[in-house]
Amino acid sequence: MTFTPRTRLFIDDPLTAGAHVNASDSHAHYLLHVMRVKVGDQVCLFNGDDGEWQATISMPGKKRVDYTVEKLLRPQTPEPDVWMAFAPIKRIEFLGEKATELGASALQPVITRRTDIARVNTQRLLANAVQAAEQSDRLSVPTVHPAMSFDQLLNVWPATRRLFFLDETGGGVPAAQAFRDDKTKSVGFLTGPEGGFEQSELDALRQLPFATAVGLGPRVLRAETAALAALACWQAQSGDWGGGA
Amino acid sequence: MTFTPRTRLFIDDPLTAGAHVNASDSHAHYLLHVMRVKVGDQVCLFNGDDGEWQATISMPGKKRVDYTVEKLLRPQTPEPDVWMAFAPIKRIEFLGEKATELGASALQPVITRRTDIARVNTQRLLANAVQAAEQSDRLSVPTVHPAMSFDQLLNVWPATRRLFFLDETGGGVPAAQAFRDDKTKSVGFLTGPEGGFEQSELDALRQLPFATAVGLGPRVLRAETAALAALACWQAQSGDWGGGA
Repeated sequence: MTFTPRTRLFIDDPLTAGAHVNASDSHAHYLLHVMRVKVGDQVCLFNGDDGEWQATISMPGKKRVDYTVEKLLRPQTPEPDVWMAFAPIKRIEFLGEKATELGASALQPVITRRTDIARVNTQRLLANAVQAAEQSDRLSVPTVHPAMSFDQLLNVWPATRRLFFLDETGGGVPAAQAFRDDKTKSVGFLTGPEGGFEQSELDALRQLPFATAVGLGPRVLRAETAALAALACWQAQSGDWGGGA
Repeated sequence: MTFTPRTRLFIDDPLTAGAHVNASDSHAHYLLHVMRVKVGDQVCLFNGDDGEWQATISMPGKKRVDYTVEKLLRPQTPEPDVWMAFAPIKRIEFLGEKATELGASALQPVITRRTDIARVNTQRLLANAVQAAEQSDRLSVPTVHPAMSFDQLLNVWPATRRLFFLDETGGGVPAAQAFRDDKTKSVGFLTGPEGGFEQSELDALRQLPFATAVGLGPRVLRAETAALAALACWQAQSGDWGGGA
């Protein structure tokens, strides 16, 4: 029988050969009632630090599932250091899922002046990110930060990290050129809400020496499309997709 | 008062200065009951051939809306010639919407061997594309073709059009390199279903002199994410976003 584990789970515990790990209640429920696993079935586990491991299921109680960690399948490898800061939008779950697939290292909701959404469900955003990481074979889950205001973001943004903000007014540097010209290893994106940034916000961004306005062509992209398109272009040019100029 | 028409509609009729155009029933309904327009209100019209026009609403009957075409706002300009062929997936509407925003010139559903979806609602796909074109300030709507089989697609694909297929097995040329190296003006993408292409399909594609396998990095992207990421990267490098190397 070929070893083809289909279930990939992100856990919080350390992973080492021989470790016995107690599955969380939600994982136990998922494994027992959705995946209908049996004793001796195998799963893949990762925790963002120790790589991906093959583990075997045991069931020491009726509702309890344990993992016996057995074999390192993939060692942890460095991943691109690219933040995705975004004004929360109606399709925020979609944005979080896609940004995770596309390798964002952190998700940062930012309340801009035209942001319509009052409260961000960070737990849900994280749950989506975990699921997307599990399904996309990522070895990590992006850090999900609590929402902060636009002004706060600009105050805490490290000057050594390039900030690419998506400028829907047409004045930005074309994405391919902006990413090709930038040699910074740590970067981040900022996308606006459905109604775009306010002029005062664009002005504030343009004054930052570490910020670059990026343009994504002549069509008006929805906020979530712009975020994903920009992240994909950056990964292709400067991230871990290879082949950049 | 500044002229800020918010309503942008795609119509089938020719657009010239002074033309009187009878709104379709669905547009009349939308304008009367959703937008609640009044006589004298202005809208933007485009048809994919004659550019974008300012027009004024009149109401010659209770349920009837007419447009008087007045002023050319933007002339028709050439757009990138990039097809998006894709195995229909659960999120097909999302894929159609995003491909339209990102400037695909044609949408072609392709039934591959692992395609789970038996019937493609082409009318719905077109309706989504029209809406996305209206909202994204496009001057055209992608041509939506009826579904065809994988074998048919390969038979009718023009040898002068580069075919970028997304190779999830890891053997593809990195996207940035593939697009930079290709000087073809007419291109198209092909993406597989949730379960990927079958080996025989990949083999058939690899034998085509005009086909290039494209890779999108180490993570496993969902089918719709791969389609959008590839299209965005191509637009950035070779399409109408500018700044390509």
